[in-house]
Amino acid sequence: MNIEIINIGDELLIGQVVNTNASWMGQQLSLAGFKVQQFTIIGDEREQILDAMWKAGERSEVVLISGGIGPTKDDITKTTLCDFFGTRLVFNEEAYKDVEAIFARRGYEVTELNRQQAYLPEECTSIPNKLGTARGMWFEKDIPVQGRTGKTIYVSMPGVPFEMQAMMKEYIIPELKTRFHPKSFYHKTILTQGIGESFLAALIEDWENNLPPSVKLAYLPQPGMVRLRLTGTGDHEASIRALVEEEAGKLSAIIPEHIFGEDDELIEAIVGKLLKEKKCTLGTAESCTGGYIAHLLTSIPGSSAYYKGSIIAYDNTIKEQMLGISKGTIEKFGVVSSEVVTEMAIGAQSRLDVDYVIAVSGIAGPDGGTEEKPVGLVWIAIATPDEVFSKKFLLGDSRERNIRRAALQALNLLRKNLLA
Amino acid sequence: MNIEIINIGDELLIGQVVNTNASWMGQQLSLAGFKVQQFTIIGDEREQILDAMWKAGERSEVVLISGGIGPTKDDITKTTLCDFFGTRLVFNEEAYKDVEAIFARRGYEVTELNRQQAYLPEECTSIPNKLGTARGMWFEKDIPVQGRTGKTIYVSMPGVPFEMQAMMKEYIIPELKTRFHPKSFYHKTILTQGIGESFLAALIEDWENNLPPSVKLAYLPQPGMVRLRLTGTGDHEASIRALVEEEAGKLSAIIPEHIFGEDDELIEAIVGKLLKEKKCTLGTAESCTGGYIAHLLTSIPGSSAYYKGSIIAYDNTIKEQMLGISKGTIEKFGVVSSEVVTEMAIGAQSRLDVDYVIAVSGIAGPDGGTEEKPVGLVWIAIATPDEVFSKKFLLGDSRERNIRRAALQALNLLRKNLLA
Repeated sequence: MNIEIINIGDELLIGQVVNTNASWMGQQLSLAGFKVQQFTIIGDEREQILDAMWKAGERSEVVLISGGIGPTKDDITKTTLCDFFGTRLVFNEEAYKDVEAIFARRGYEVTELNRQQAYLPEECTSIPNKLGTARGMWFEKDIPVQGRTGKTIYVSMPGVPFEMQAMMKEYIIPELKTRFHPKSFYHKTILTQGIGESFLAALIEDWENNLPPSVKLAYLPQPGMVRLRLTGTGDHEASIRALVEEEAGKLSAIIPEHIFGEDDELIEAIVGKLLKEKKCTLGTAESCTGGYIAHLLTSIPGSSAYYKGSIIAYDNTIKEQMLGISKGTIEKFGVVSSEVVTEMAIGAQSRLDVDYVIAVSGIAGPDGGTEEKPVGLVWIAIATPDEVFSKKFLLGDSRERNIRRAALQALNLLRKNLLA
Repeated sequence: MNIEIINIGDELLIGQVVNTNASWMGQQLSLAGFKVQQFTIIGDEREQILDAMWKAGERSEVVLISGGIGPTKDDITKTTLCDFFGTRLVFNEEAYKDVEAIFARRGYEVTELNRQQAYLPEECTSIPNKLGTARGMWFEKDIPVQGRTGKTIYVSMPGVPFEMQAMMKEYIIPELKTRFHPKSFYHKTILTQGIGESFLAALIEDWENNLPPSVKLAYLPQPGMVRLRLTGTGDHEASIRALVEEEAGKLSAIIPEHIFGEDDELIEAIVGKLLKEKKCTLGTAESCTGGYIAHLLTSIPGSSAYYKGSIIAYDNTIKEQMLGISKGTIEKFGVVSSEVVTEMAIGAQSRLDVDYVIAVSGIAGPDGGTEEKPVGLVWIAIATPDEVFSKKFLLGDSRERNIRRAALQALNLLRKNLLA
């Protein structure tokens, strides 16, 4: 059984609004075990709506539609729905009482536009909307498709995210589950860092080729990390889960040094958790990353428990005065060097009075590179209570991505040290 | 002439990734004067790709495809494209050299998987990718549609956002403009800061109601700012431009104090430009913003010309030791106070040896608020060569948005002072 999603709204097509409804619906339906076949995004136009509904009904047994209903948009979608299903709008007493109740709570009189919202297609099951004035509508229609029996289900919902979400959770997904008894799905995402997609693929090739047919792998690269998503499908939830977890375990054993977490975990949160467990504090000394590492760390609620602060030494005089780096070191080795980044880490450790320090110096670009030290060259040092070590990276040529990649590499170096 | 977009990727359908590519592409195409007809989002499956490409080609003259190409195995798009266009993959010497060059810059050998990326469909114009290893592919095909002459254009691009964006800007949109001469559009976006959408709407109501019919206004709110986009449409570029500029001028005269820039300008770049003109330097002293202001400032190429560095004093001991704030001031007034933030600004000014300082202290949340000092309370101080002043803000209850809003407010305070 396939499900499709149609999102209606000119604002989506001109990119004024990012379509978070589609991804939310896709996620919830996948988690519930349904296969989402397609999203179709169209404007508020009758012909487009009719065409999209017809084609979706030919491909999929269930078509969920969001958007295009509401006090200012009603005319097009609702009359188009009536034509598609061969029905007409009739005044719905119950729906009108809901609208009145919502207006009463806000202390307003019902406007004529909102009164119109109580007119609903005669041949549909209407779905209450606790959070707004536009009801959902559940239709069924014969769409002749070879090899398929039964009617196609169409459900129309408002496009306001929290109204749609409440309807999906409380009514539509439970109803679909009752009718279709979906197969069980289990997803697990393994987060890797510090290795490119193609190198990773080469390392795990054998494991990937031997995956059972019910488990699929997807590579999801982002600047500075590659996520590996395992999806298992089957009839028994427990056995699928066990199978996916088993394969994830095998994968972890092949590339332990590249994995930093799973699912929605953030490396800055993982580092924070490890520091908290050790009851240790952290500071940063940043040059080319310009405060981005500090920003990532402090974006985690509760980070003040372990993160004390940073010296952003963008200018060399700050490196000398605030971090105590000797002019001689900078002159002899250059500001992007193992020696300078090591002195930055040691200087910050004593001056910020912290247990651990991440120090970074590099050439983010677009200017400032030389043949010997190109844009993308970054030195990272980690100071711990026991030692200081540094590592060189060659990242790339985009300023924005160099900053992001350097920050993730630095956090990962610290993470590995905290685990060792 | 209609354009459609197809995004390929199982990760989109299961909601693991929000489809920002579609909205970005929709926005850029609309701004260039094209009509975007539909987005279709499908999985990495041959039959789905063929079906979506065929149907899109029947509706629209141009079909832009992103995703489904890249070095690893989940990518079946390229062979499907070959079948659709009746061609085959051949090794492309030029494409291979590009792949080699990218690997050489990163100091790696080309892997077999990446070598495969140099195989491209014989019957296509390949589009260079400066930022990655997957080239774009431009195809043309006869799709018999009544009343239409000429071939349908299909362009396949990688799904990695910055790679796709560079290709769209540098190659695809210019080429489509040359071929189709879309109606003239002229857009101008006025950037406002420090005032909410509904208050802004009330201030400019009369002006908005008197806009000529060929000029449309859209409110585009974001955390910390509201963008006002004016769009003029017509046959003569010069007259549309003049009309939009005239209306923008009227708007500027109504709310001069709320406007900080226009179009894609960033407040961190505007502040940088003003500092450069004055030949002055800037430092920051951040508590609740945790390095985010430093990050914004240093994300601008060339910022090292005026930005010297920052002390991120997340912990109070850092405020005392590194910024010289007296324990007494913190004890008497609390760390989120005009007094402390003023001392932070003065302390940073002398210690970082800079002309201007932005200092911020606040309660980002979710914890740490009290009845007297709630989450969202932020004090900002600006030190200049002549004075220090501070201002209080009440921002909201989301940590992420508080950090963003505080940073924008701080940069705007400095901007106004630099202009005064």
